[in-house]
Order: sequence, then structure tokens, then C-alpha cells
Amino acid sequence: MSALLKQRVRYAPYLAKLRSAEECVELFKHGQYLGWSGFTGVGAPKVVPQALADHVEKNNLQGKLAFNLFVGASAGPEESRWADLDMLLRRSPHQVGKPIAKAINDGRTMFFDKHLSMFPQDLTYGYYTKNKENDLLDYTIIEATAITEDGSIVPGPAVGGSPEMISVSDKIIIEVNTKTPSFEGIHDIDMPVNPPHRLPYPHTTTDYRVGRTSIPVDPSKVVAIVESTQRDKVPANTPSDAMSQQIGTHLIEFFEHEVKMGRLPANLLPLQSGIGNIANAVVEGLAESNFKNLTVWTEVLQDSFLDFFDSGSLDFATATSIRLTEAGFDRFDKSWDEFSKKLCLRSQVVSNSPEIIRRLGVIAMNTPVEVDMYAHANSTNVMGSRMLNGLGGSADFLRNAKLSIMHTPSARPSKIDPTGVSCIVPFAPHVDQTEHDLDVIVTEQGLADLRGMSPRERAVEIIDKCAHPDYKDQLREYFDRAVFHAQKAKCMHEPHILKDALKMHLNFQENGTMKLDSWDQKF
Amino acid sequence: MSALLKQRVRYAPYLAKLRSAEECVELFKHGQYLGWSGFTGVGAPKVVPQALADHVEKNNLQGKLAFNLFVGASAGPEESRWADLDMLLRRSPHQVGKPIAKAINDGRTMFFDKHLSMFPQDLTYGYYTKNKENDLLDYTIIEATAITEDGSIVPGPAVGGSPEMISVSDKIIIEVNTKTPSFEGIHDIDMPVNPPHRLPYPHTTTDYRVGRTSIPVDPSKVVAIVESTQRDKVPANTPSDAMSQQIGTHLIEFFEHEVKMGRLPANLLPLQSGIGNIANAVVEGLAESNFKNLTVWTEVLQDSFLDFFDSGSLDFATATSIRLTEAGFDRFDKSWDEFSKKLCLRSQVVSNSPEIIRRLGVIAMNTPVEVDMYAHANSTNVMGSRMLNGLGGSADFLRNAKLSIMHTPSARPSKIDPTGVSCIVPFAPHVDQTEHDLDVIVTEQGLADLRGMSPRERAVEIIDKCAHPDYKDQLREYFDRAVFHAQKAKCMHEPHILKDALKMHLNFQENGTMKLDSWDQKF
Repeated sequence: MSALLKQRVRYAPYLAKLRSAEECVELFKHGQYLGWSGFTGVGAPKVVPQALADHVEKNNLQGKLAFNLFVGASAGPEESRWADLDMLLRRSPHQVGKPIAKAINDGRTMFFDKHLSMFPQDLTYGYYTKNKENDLLDYTIIEATAITEDGSIVPGPAVGGSPEMISVSDKIIIEVNTKTPSFEGIHDIDMPVNPPHRLPYPHTTTDYRVGRTSIPVDPSKVVAIVESTQRDKVPANTPSDAMSQQIGTHLIEFFEHEVKMGRLPANLLPLQSGIGNIANAVVEGLAESNFKNLTVWTEVLQDSFLDFFDSGSLDFATATSIRLTEAGFDRFDKSWDEFSKKLCLRSQVVSNSPEIIRRLGVIAMNTPVEVDMYAHANSTNVMGSRMLNGLGGSADFLRNAKLSIMHTPSARPSKIDPTGVSCIVPFAPHVDQTEHDLDVIVTEQGLADLRGMSPRERAVEIIDKCAHPDYKDQLREYFDRAVFHAQKAKCMHEPHILKDALKMHLNFQENGTMKLDSWDQKF
Repeated sequence: MSALLKQRVRYAPYLAKLRSAEECVELFKHGQYLGWSGFTGVGAPKVVPQALADHVEKNNLQGKLAFNLFVGASAGPEESRWADLDMLLRRSPHQVGKPIAKAINDGRTMFFDKHLSMFPQDLTYGYYTKNKENDLLDYTIIEATAITEDGSIVPGPAVGGSPEMISVSDKIIIEVNTKTPSFEGIHDIDMPVNPPHRLPYPHTTTDYRVGRTSIPVDPSKVVAIVESTQRDKVPANTPSDAMSQQIGTHLIEFFEHEVKMGRLPANLLPLQSGIGNIANAVVEGLAESNFKNLTVWTEVLQDSFLDFFDSGSLDFATATSIRLTEAGFDRFDKSWDEFSKKLCLRSQVVSNSPEIIRRLGVIAMNTPVEVDMYAHANSTNVMGSRMLNGLGGSADFLRNAKLSIMHTPSARPSKIDPTGVSCIVPFAPHVDQTEHDLDVIVTEQGLADLRGMSPRERAVEIIDKCAHPDYKDQLREYFDRAVFHAQKAKCMHEPHILKDALKMHLNFQENGTMKLDSWDQKF
């Protein structure tokens, strides 16, 4: 037992339950329901999942020792290994990484994506264990960076769905990470209370704290403590580029206009921003802008937020996960005193709460796969069928924000055409965000402000402002034909020609580009 | 001035502003932005809209004296007349009645439908008047059943969006309805407070009251008081039939099962129910069931709720509107003392609030146009384009409820085929509720419990339990072909064949039935 472990585990009875990761393997049986801590690739258990993967690999148990796995959102490379080894029977509510997407798209893993604010709640309702006799998760494996005197758990860089998982878990395994510094004091934990007994969330500002800094747990449920000395492995951030910087510029101009018109206060409202190079560009743009005293209410913070803090423009940021690269974590650790005052990590049911998002008037920004001309967005399924990562918290934020913004490049490359995929399409082949949820669409081409517009007005605005020049005429032709058809058929609310609506996607599937020879092309 | 009017208007200065409806006509100019009180056909202004319609008709001003009209949800026959007379340039967020739907589908009226919880909020944000110089509604015409000593307005059978409209209106016209009894005491009014100053809604039970029973108004904004002696005209309720009773039976059995499994308390949780014969059948079924001490948190109450109260099973009901027939209102008036203790009418931002719906754990039940096999639902646009009524509050409830249920007949008649329209389709041609929002689909054929299921599992369950026998094989064949295709194409998450996905709809458009000769049929 390392001295560091003894120091981190301040509840002595747990130390009697110390096991190696390998000694935990025997606890697991095929078909069990498991919860893991973690959110967006950080704060997940590492050594126990690895020991299980080693065991499966060594004994050729692929598909024979497999689990129903729930993680707040996504875990790290360990779950990718589980996917490769056919250890995932079922997975929810989100995932990231090629091996898992492959297992889902091969049909080897049953996956369902769910709003990240709802998933932990529905888990506590028993909805995901309704076919199990005891209605509980068999094990929750949770990473801790410290254990308090009463045995409660101080998580690491993610809170996620851990409070709920622990509350409905039959047994608990704690991986105490002694390589990561303790995150004690940075968390603010809400434990689940279900209807009809649920009370209002009292949060009225981004920096509100209920005051609980660790996750309470019934010590008798804790069956093992395992020491882990592995840090999170987060890939380098995608840097901003000319396209994403252009999107950032459009957005800053739009915010300035909204402040001028009195629809936003001078320091805006709490910002929600996703992951990826557009999100990074927007954050960079804000850091360099004239906006001051900004706040952030989001689900995940990235390295770019460290610069955002350093710029002096950001007063406070809160999320359920802080997903930093190793360099980012080192920088974070060095300035712990400063950052930890300006930052708070919460449960995902709180960070993504419709109640709080709507109350605070959050400005939500997310990237879709594609948006259609009437402002329905596909966030998840390429060509309507192929799972990318899952819904995440996009719909929690976009449905409830004061300003609901989707940003996307106007086109993406296909194998044969540098602009073979238009991100503005006539008809989305999968809808995760409806036309009733989006206020603004922005691409590097421009910004479409759709507030108060009827569907036909939106189509004109989106094609005009957002579509790539290679697709503008083609999209306008579809819209004009649809309007012509709808005038005769008396269905002018949202004109479509159903037999043509998906032709851009069909052409991509058959010919590798969304550029049509003609709308009369047959498929 | 009638004695009754003097009695109802307890703020004397208003009486000096008394005008006839005809005398109000001169206030209105083409292109103005108007708010009307009213929700689901009750509580809307009547005599001023009628005088304006008469004026337009008499002077052939069709299309020349027309307005941008906002109503909480839908108004009564007056707005139908405005639609017929081309007096609606723009309309939001909901509408009911053939003339308005016709104006929208002809392309004469620009309409957008919006979540009913969000519409009044976005109005106060200035989103719908952003192209106007003064950023305000020009007039709000509101029906009152009394005026208090400080000039504030006691609405009639609907609160709707009136508090918000009044708060952002340049001028106000009050129609005091002296034919309808005063509804004083039945309302509970929340006035809008916008971010960053918004506080939690304190509601933790259906009967919670903030205590304000009238809508405060700045008396200097009130430009006219008009007496109205016209009652609301609500068409007779659609009675339940064998189909809808069968759906009710499936649901009661399901609720009983959920109670037995410990996932619902013995008195369930607050119920939300829509309008129509299925909703009526469900309410009838509950009234006759063994469930006691039930509560209702919904947007509109119908005549069937009077029986529900009389059954003794319903403890309390709250909504934003009580849409009763004349017979229903008479019955309501006679037992006012009894009903008014068990009933409360609130602002639609409160009745439809995601915050409160999620906190209370509401059981939401709504009827779609159609549901697809992966559980996306179309609530608004027939064949993807033709507007029916609009979204209403369906998505406010279905996104946030503890149990999100959609009920529909498995098939509907077309002109040439008694089961020519399947309500279970491979691919919804318009999506208002996403696969991430629905827990249960029920038709007269059976109930599909989708909680925790991946999309492919959902498809099997929905087709098996819910589809009409005339369509089961056809739907299974599509699904099997899509899976076969997806296995090769490695897109097994939500298998679709995009070139076939809309063929049932195309066949309906061309041949009047969704029954295909073959999936290879060409369109």
C-alpha cells in the first residue's frame, strides 16, 4: 500500500478492502450491468477495465464475458479496448472513439443515445434495468482522487452520472487515482431525489454551490479499493483554422448586435460550447473580443478555456467535466489556487438541466452533422443510419437556451470531391434537433438569424447565408420546385417533394458527392 | 353602460375609456403586431376582432388590412374569419380550425409553430418583433371577466400568454365579458422575469399557488374597454370509441404494472393529457379504474375532466385553459365552489414549463400524426409539408415527462381504403419528437415499452405491438431489408434504405393508400 494511497483514503475501513485490479476480475460475470464514472474521456476507471480486457484477451473470452455498460458520457481508451474485444453487449448514453462506433455500426453492440440530463435520472427510475430481477446496476466502478473521513468519494476531473449510478448500484469498486492530484473542493454534488419529492434546483448564477464536495456512499456497498497510477489520456485539441475562425467572427458580430439591440446584456449570458475546432475558435474569438465578465455554463471544458481564463474576460466557468490534455492538466495543477476559485464541476443532471439552462438564459452553441433548409438538424447519424458519437447534451442545451445556435462548415470533403458533402441539405435524413429548437445557423459563409421566421422564410435565409457556393443553386432549385409543387398541392407550410428530398444523400451514397447532375436524376 | 359592466370593472378610470367594438376599428393599421388572449379556443377576444372582420368585409379590404397575430395557442371562430378574409399576414405559435390551416397551406399566412412554453418567453425577448422599430406589440386585445381595484385583469377560462403579451405591448384593449361569469380566484399568475434575473419556479405540487389572481397592467397603456356579451363556442367533444377505449385499457394495465414494479407511486404522478377522443378515453378509463388521489398537470382541461372530478378519483387539476362546451361551462358554474377549489389556471410558461414538468415527474400522453419504427414522431405536418394544427405543448411535455407516451390509432382511413394510412411508418417525413424523447407507443393493437432499447430493438417492438395487421408484414420487410443492407454497409445503428424510406408516403400520394405492391415499386 503506497503512502500516497493511505494519505488519499481518509476512511480507514476501505483500506482493508484493497485489491489489485487483477483480483477484481473474478467479481465480473457475463451479462452484468455496469456503471463507470467518467465524462468525455476523463475521470473514468482505468486499471480494473484494463485487467478485465487482459483477462478476456488472454482467455479468448471475446463475446463471452461482455457487459451492459453505462458511462455518464464517454470514457477513455479502456472502453475502446472493450469494444474491440466484444465486451460491450449494450452501451448508453454516449460514446467517442472509432472502436465503439465500429462495434455499434457492425451491429455487435446495442447502443442508445439519450439526453445527458435524462440518462442518470432514467437510470434511477429503473428504466434501464427493468428486465433485471434486483433492478440495480451490478457494479459501479468509479475513479476517485480522494476518500473523505466518512467514506464518501471525491471524483477527479468528471462528475458525470456517478452520483446516480452509486445510488442504484448493488456494489461499488473505487479506483483511487494517486497519480492525478486530488480534485477536492472543485466539485459541487447534487444527489438524486425523484418525483414526487424533487425540489427546485436553487442555482441562479453560474457560480452557485450547494456545498457538497464529495459523493456520499454506503460503505457496506464498497467491495474493493484499487489503486490506479494512470492519468487520463486526452488527444490534442483540434486547432482552429480559417473556416472556424470565420464562424467565430460571425458569432462575435452577432453577439455585439444583440447587445446593441438590448436583447443581451453587455457581458452576454452564460455560454455553452461543445468540443472541436469550431468551439475552440469561438472561445478564442471571445477571449480576444471586447466582451468582459463572461461566464460559462456548459458540460465540458477544454484546454482553450485555460487561455480564456488567462485573457481576463472569463469570470467563472462550470461544467460536469474538465477534459484537459496532459499539458493542460499540468498547467491547471500549477495554477490550482487560481483556477479552482473560478471553476466548479457538477453532476451532469445539473450541468445539463433544462430547468437551469432556461433560467440562466444560456447561449448554446453546437456542431451538427448537417442542417436542413427548414432548420432541422442531424447530430448523430450519418446518412440517417451510421452512428457517429451520439446525441450528448446538444438537445438539452439547444431546446432550452435563450439563444440556440448551431455552427458547421458549409461543406465537408468526400473521398472524391473537396466539397462533396453539403452540410446544408434539403431534408435531414435523421432529426435530433427540430425546427422548433434552433434560432441561428452559422457557417463560414454567414449567419442565418431564424427567429420569428416561418419555414419558407427560413429556407431562403439558410440557403442564402449559410450554404456553400457550390450548392446554393442546387438547393434553391429544390426549394423552388418544392414551392411550385406545394402551391398546386396546397401544402405550402413546409414544401417538400418527398421523392426528391433525399436525392443529395442518395447521390453521395452512389457517386461520392452530393452534387447532382439534375434533380430529375433517378436512384 | 350596463350595470353588470360597472360591477365587473372595479377600477373607475377604465370606464371613461369605454368604446364600442366598432369605435376600436380606427385604431388598427395594416401590418401591425397584435397579441390576443386565449388558448385552445377559449378566452380570446371576440367583439373587437368581429368588428374588424366586418369592416374588412364591408370595405373589401381583404389582404389590405392584415396583421401579425400572436395568440397563446388558438383562439375561437373569430380568427377563422380573419383567415378567410386574408387578415393574417403572420401567425404563431399554434392554430386550430380549417380556415387558418387553409390560409397557411395556401401560402397566404406565414405561420411558425413553437413550443408553447417558449413562445411567450421569446416574445418578451423581442425575438418576434426584432424587425419593428419600437420592439413591441402594437396592441394586445385581452378578454377579462373582471377588473380589480388597481386596474389589473382577471382573465376568463384561459391565461395562456396574456401576462407576457401585456408586458411587451404598446397599448392594450380589454374586452370585459359580462356574459361569462367572473373567474376571479381560479387563476394563479406568474409575471415574466428574464435572465439573468429569473428565479426558480417554486412549484413542487400540482396545487401550489404563488397567489396572484389577476394580471397586473399599467393603466396608462389601456386605450379602450369594450363590453362583450358573447360566450365561448367550443364544439362538442369527440366521444371515445372502441379503438380509443382499447388504447385506454392498454395504458391502465401499463400503469398498474409500473406501480407493481415500484416505478410509479400508487396514485401515479401528475397526468398530462391532450385533446381528442383518445385523450377522452384515457380520462374515462382512469375515472373508472382503481386509481385514487390522482392529480393532473396539463395545458388544457376538457369536459371529460368534470366527470373525472365527479368520479372522486381526481384530487386536483391545473392547466392554462379550461376548454368547456356551453353545457360544460354551465355545469362548471353550478358547482363553482367545488370545482374552483380543485382547479387552478396558470400562465402557459408555467403549465408547460420543462422545469416543473420534470420536477413533478409528469406522465405525458399525446397523439401524433404518425410514429416511425425507431420512435420519431410527426406531430404537425401531414406528408411532411401540410400543416395540421402545430406543435402545441406536445414537445414541452414529451421531452421532460417521467413517462413520455404517444397514443395513436394504428391506421386511419384514406379516401379509397379504410386502413389506407398507417400511423406506424418506416421513416417519419417530419420529426417533432425525436427517438430520444419517447418511452412508450400505444395503439389499439398494443403497447410498446421502449425504455432502454436500442433503435433496432425498438423497431421490432413497435412493429410487433403497435402496427395494424394490414401493415405488419410490409413494415417487417422494410426493416429486414434495411438490416440486410446495413450489415453490408456497416451502419447498423439505425438501418434505413434512403431510397425506399418514404415509399409508403409516396404511394399514398400517388395511389391513395400506404399499401405497397412491393418495396421495389418505383416512384
